[in-house]
Amino acid sequence: MDGGLGKVSGPARLAAPDEGISPEELALAARNHGMPLEALRYDLTPPGLHYVLVHYDIPHAPPGPWQLSVEGRVGRALSFDVAELRALPAVTQRVTMECAGNGRARLEPRPVSQPWLVEAVGTAEWTGTPLRRLLDEAGVEPDAVEVIFTGADHGVERGVEQDYRRSLPLEVAMGDDPEVLVAYAMNGEPLPPQHGYPLRLVVPGWYGMAHVKWLSDIFVADVPFTGFQQTEAYRLRQEADEPGEPVARIAPRALLVPPGFPDFMSRVRFVRPGVVPLEGRAWSGYAPVTTVEVSDDDGRTWHRARLKPGDSHRWAWRSWTYTWTAEPGSYVLSARATDAEGRSQPLDQPWNRGGFANNLVQRVPVTCLEALETTSG
Amino acid sequence: MDGGLGKVSGPARLAAPDEGISPEELALAARNHGMPLEALRYDLTPPGLHYVLVHYDIPHAPPGPWQLSVEGRVGRALSFDVAELRALPAVTQRVTMECAGNGRARLEPRPVSQPWLVEAVGTAEWTGTPLRRLLDEAGVEPDAVEVIFTGADHGVERGVEQDYRRSLPLEVAMGDDPEVLVAYAMNGEPLPPQHGYPLRLVVPGWYGMAHVKWLSDIFVADVPFTGFQQTEAYRLRQEADEPGEPVARIAPRALLVPPGFPDFMSRVRFVRPGVVPLEGRAWSGYAPVTTVEVSDDDGRTWHRARLKPGDSHRWAWRSWTYTWTAEPGSYVLSARATDAEGRSQPLDQPWNRGGFANNLVQRVPVTCLEALETTSG
Repeated sequence: MDGGLGKVSGPARLAAPDEGISPEELALAARNHGMPLEALRYDLTPPGLHYVLVHYDIPHAPPGPWQLSVEGRVGRALSFDVAELRALPAVTQRVTMECAGNGRARLEPRPVSQPWLVEAVGTAEWTGTPLRRLLDEAGVEPDAVEVIFTGADHGVERGVEQDYRRSLPLEVAMGDDPEVLVAYAMNGEPLPPQHGYPLRLVVPGWYGMAHVKWLSDIFVADVPFTGFQQTEAYRLRQEADEPGEPVARIAPRALLVPPGFPDFMSRVRFVRPGVVPLEGRAWSGYAPVTTVEVSDDDGRTWHRARLKPGDSHRWAWRSWTYTWTAEPGSYVLSARATDAEGRSQPLDQPWNRGGFANNLVQRVPVTCLEALETTSG
Repeated sequence: MDGGLGKVSGPARLAAPDEGISPEELALAARNHGMPLEALRYDLTPPGLHYVLVHYDIPHAPPGPWQLSVEGRVGRALSFDVAELRALPAVTQRVTMECAGNGRARLEPRPVSQPWLVEAVGTAEWTGTPLRRLLDEAGVEPDAVEVIFTGADHGVERGVEQDYRRSLPLEVAMGDDPEVLVAYAMNGEPLPPQHGYPLRLVVPGWYGMAHVKWLSDIFVADVPFTGFQQTEAYRLRQEADEPGEPVARIAPRALLVPPGFPDFMSRVRFVRPGVVPLEGRAWSGYAPVTTVEVSDDDGRTWHRARLKPGDSHRWAWRSWTYTWTAEPGSYVLSARATDAEGRSQPLDQPWNRGGFANNLVQRVPVTCLEALETTSG
């Protein structure tokens, strides 16, 4: 009896070959937003520049203390308010977060969903309570296999009414590398509403769908979770009817701060001849980034960039620089990251039906003007 | 000699009748963002939810103190750093700001530019130095007619390389109603980078293009300013070759918090039968809002909403509420504001080539489900 829902909440679809971005995709793009790439300059992305994806609505936190329950296959069910969590030992981690759908809008055919280009990323310092401490305190039963996280974000997706809900394998939830957090602070401040106020999960190294916002319930389960966001959405599939592999860790990616200055409408960049310092960031959710290469000829030749010395922030992007010398002409700049386990970025577009985990190298068209070229401005 | 610029920076254009949102428009939508409409609940919009439009790049503030110069037709040219401005008497104003292009993406034909739907708005408390105090200190010459403001945002638009630059008539710049501010704080904190750090202009009641961000220069002029953003852009025109009227004050608008919960992709809303409290905000840059009406039948009939008592925030939105009783079926909810000077919102779409100052009433499709309707979730 989902007639009312089914009428307006259709199945997943691919755009037709010449179909422009639809009004529905635009409505998502107007709500959610990427990180303007010049913000790659900041070690920590200011909250309003960090990418945001909200599936349904930013929930309206009810008056009174927020309660986080821990239940299911545990020795004793527990409940915490934010003050109780803040009273426990805190951990702060610098984490680069990226949306699993980053790059989707450039795919052909294009999966119709949030139409990210390449900017769905950001880095913040998250402070909270290690999840494993809460699970230890509740006492996980021996038959537990997964932990299910429920957020207060409520809506409909492909005909299914739901609270946003995702699971982690027990060994990830209980692990210390990465250390999963129940976070209550972002860059030292209470979470902004759109980043999960008052509580969210932070799973370093994993794509954004795992970092459940507005976290209200933690349920320890003895069977794998089969809810919508786990088995319908966020799977790597070539065909609609195959089960597919789950989306999990972040594939390596490098991005550069587009140099020079842009044209308002085309976003093409202009520089003038001479030395143009390039800088950017690179990250991988699998292993530390060990190499970044830069190309100014659309990926035909590559040159080693200088990686800033590694620091203690294992789960955050690394800064890199490259000195480019520009001469008048047209260029496509790219950067490519490789991690310590040998994963790198493809030069040809991989594809899956959801448009997930896509880490094709960035292309930044740049025009180098003549030295004395002036304009009518 | 603008061959390099002209090749990639084309003239303004209208989309073809069936042209979907272009990759260029999407690139703007992914960078800039509106306010998710559920954030109408907040008196003050958190900075990361306030709408943002950046013409070119968020400038990289150079090391060392930012200098704001005051020059041109003045008795003595002055320069201020932020600390010097903070030492002067401060004024705080709560201001609702809206992009002049809000609603553009729904126009037919669609002007190709930042494709706002209806959400390019936000309200903040801005603290700074009254502009007229700085002008008084510099001593405006009797032949002055306008004041020109330059921001550090640098780029190309329709072939013209420029720093973002706008003017105000002298009487507006020197006026105290509204009181124009050189602002250094937003909601009590230093300006976020995307909102103009370290200094921006705030012109209460005017559309966003007047509130020059990353303000670096104030120039008192004895002739009207004819720069790109004043005479090419931000004009109300039916034909490309007419001079057009300048865009200035914000036309009245009411928006409602979409009730119930959404479908992820279509953004259509669902409610269940019974009392559904509606709430929203309304504003006008001309005069206080005196009436808000609500319709649940796509504008055929209207019912008076309850306006919260007026407060001292003349330039900020007013809160309104309405108690709606929903029965199963499909609805289009709308709200319409009227101000004290009788300006209201059109029910039929007005049009101009830039897609500016468009205040067509909002349409929020809502499906009321059957009371017992359940889903497959």
